[in-house]
Amino acid sequence: MSNPLKIWLDRDGKLLRLQLDKPKANIVDAAMIAALNEALGAHRGNSDIAAVLLDASGPHFSFGASVEEHMPEQCAEMLASLHGLIKTMLDYRVPILVAINGQCLGGGLEVALAGHLLFAHPDASLGQPEMLLGVFAPAASCLLPERVGQSRTDDLLWSGRSVSGSDGLAMGLVDYNADDPQAAALGYFDKHLAKKSTSSLRLAVQASRSGYVGRTVAKLDEVEKLYLDELMSTHDAVEGLEAFVAKRPAKWENR
Amino acid sequence: MSNPLKIWLDRDGKLLRLQLDKPKANIVDAAMIAALNEALGAHRGNSDIAAVLLDASGPHFSFGASVEEHMPEQCAEMLASLHGLIKTMLDYRVPILVAINGQCLGGGLEVALAGHLLFAHPDASLGQPEMLLGVFAPAASCLLPERVGQSRTDDLLWSGRSVSGSDGLAMGLVDYNADDPQAAALGYFDKHLAKKSTSSLRLAVQASRSGYVGRTVAKLDEVEKLYLDELMSTHDAVEGLEAFVAKRPAKWENR
Amino acid sequence: MSNPLKIWLDRDGKLLRLQLDKPKANIVDAAMIAALNEALGAHRGNSDIAAVLLDASGPHFSFGASVEEHMPEQCAEMLASLHGLIKTMLDYRVPILVAINGQCLGGGLEVALAGHLLFAHPDASLGQPEMLLGVFAPAASCLLPERVGQSRTDDLLWSGRSVSGSDGLAMGLVDYNADDPQAAALGYFDKHLAKKSTSSLRLAVQASRSGYVGRTVAKLDEVEKLYLDELMSTHDAVEGLEAFVAKRPAKWENR
Repeated sequence: MSNPLKIWLDRDGKLLRLQLDKPKANIVDAAMIAALNEALGAHRGNSDIAAVLLDASGPHFSFGASVEEHMPEQCAEMLASLHGLIKTMLDYRVPILVAINGQCLGGGLEVALAGHLLFAHPDASLGQPEMLLGVFAPAASCLLPERVGQSRTDDLLWSGRSVSGSDGLAMGLVDYNADDPQAAALGYFDKHLAKKSTSSLRLAVQASRSGYVGRTVAKLDEVEKLYLDELMSTHDAVEGLEAFVAKRPAKWENR
Repeated sequence: MSNPLKIWLDRDGKLLRLQLDKPKANIVDAAMIAALNEALGAHRGNSDIAAVLLDASGPHFSFGASVEEHMPEQCAEMLASLHGLIKTMLDYRVPILVAINGQCLGGGLEVALAGHLLFAHPDASLGQPEMLLGVFAPAASCLLPERVGQSRTDDLLWSGRSVSGSDGLAMGLVDYNADDPQAAALGYFDKHLAKKSTSSLRLAVQASRSGYVGRTVAKLDEVEKLYLDELMSTHDAVEGLEAFVAKRPAKWENR
Repeated sequence: MSNPLKIWLDRDGKLLRLQLDKPKANIVDAAMIAALNEALGAHRGNSDIAAVLLDASGPHFSFGASVEEHMPEQCAEMLASLHGLIKTMLDYRVPILVAINGQCLGGGLEVALAGHLLFAHPDASLGQPEMLLGVFAPAASCLLPERVGQSRTDDLLWSGRSVSGSDGLAMGLVDYNADDPQAAALGYFDKHLAKKSTSSLRLAVQASRSGYVGRTVAKLDEVEKLYLDELMSTHDAVEGLEAFVAKRPAKWENR
């Protein structure tokens, strides 16, 4: 099996590059999550790196998670793994920059939102369409309120609608717009991070994100439990996922 | 006594309509609060509804609470009832859309802010004038920081000034502007909520708002206690309310 | 030693004026911090005052803290004193208005951010350059997320970059822009605060800021400990401060 993730060191070993490499969908499936977790874990103690740049090959960041892996029998394992990755990213010791082109949806947007600074093309399309499949987006339920406030979070999650990169900038969903988000993130690294002491930077990261990380991780544990214990026991969640896989309309029974 | 609240089911039973129906002031008094509490309680377990739309008949949403009911002898009962309604709305299981025209002031704005998505006319006038009467707005003290941040909350509450619906949109006080806020809210329902599984939607609401609800309810309990135990023991709070009712200028003694 | 702070009562004794008075740098050093702490402490129970206006003489608000006082042997005492001032301001019983011209950097911006409503010239320059010296800004790590969100906080703190007053307004770092910030703050006082009951205002301040104050103070204690126990044990933090004082480039060892 080819590695779904390209991993290399850039900028004289100071920048860890991670590139989702299963275009064009770049599905965030078990293999992709494991590869991300492994790469981040391997470099967690690397005092040479000052930042991580996460992007994707091809025209799209990611179409989202694997719907098949959301089926009841695999769901608990998949969520534990995905949320482990989210927690690792949230509490990572150096800044994680994320460059986003094209579609960035569902589990793909959840992974991007766990990064620290997001650079998006103004025409990128960002959204959490989970509700269209009868399920909710657990990590986005925790990550979005901190970026866009509670009512915009509710709007995005309940509607399942997507927004453009430029609308995302206006609401705080992303931090920068650029026609070449990857180049913008590299430029940010060169200008603002490359010359910093990495030991000081690591403590600055911990200081500024303390509070945020604890709050978000605590909510994520609670919401994961709600997903597994309650949502997955409903008829409609299973029906929605099965209908999607079978490419047929779902029939809701509101239970 | 005529019912101060119109209650009906719309959109094939999928949308609970609640309309403040004591124009033009639509005062949020004991009768109105009780009617809202009862209607929301009666439909809390109704798995057919996908949302609530709260609006008002006449040109104004609400001029606010009953000042007479804020007098020392009735105040504790009135606040318990109003805050019970606020908590019910905050933690309601389906989205509460609120459509706002004209004046939306004091207790009226507090009730609106406890809703989930706010649609306001750009020329609507929103504010918490309580400080002009020598009291503070307890629920708004808890609801505003989550929408507009701490310093804008302080500004609005301490000054007592009103802002327009369009300024409110810019600062996150409301979510959408529309010349016909009721039609906009109905359009949102038709497009984004009507076709969702209500069992999945109910869990999505719980997931996204977890954290926010607990935080806000805990603060509301604390602030209610401050209002009853400290504010109502001051000369100026009672003087401000009595002067307002007597339509005379208040004489502050700063105690 | 001349008093580094001008202190007087304005507006018939209703407005406490505090003016940093060591232009042009207005360094927030031990003497300045002590003077601010003393003045605020002396007026904490003054029921005549409805607000505080903090500004600075000369063209700049403040270039920041004393780098010499950040050296290991003085650091704990300096931080305890500065953070004591920050906590006093955060929880002050009447609104603290801050008027900002010119440079407002480092410890100077931290003190300003502990105020409640910030009025800045559009061309003012606001930033936390600590990371350029190999240290982080402990109070700003706690105050900024509440104003500008986590990702903009990270961006400002990690990069050390400055933003203009007008950019600061757009991101919520300051509350108002004005060509004469001092006059704007005085105008705000005259219009919105001067005629309020100060006893009611004091309780309104406590009500709206409850939650925010507790959260921020708890994080500040945690971050101060991280600064003293971990950051000051690194080679690079000491090297950065020493290099700055010696006006030579720092040599990072990433440890």
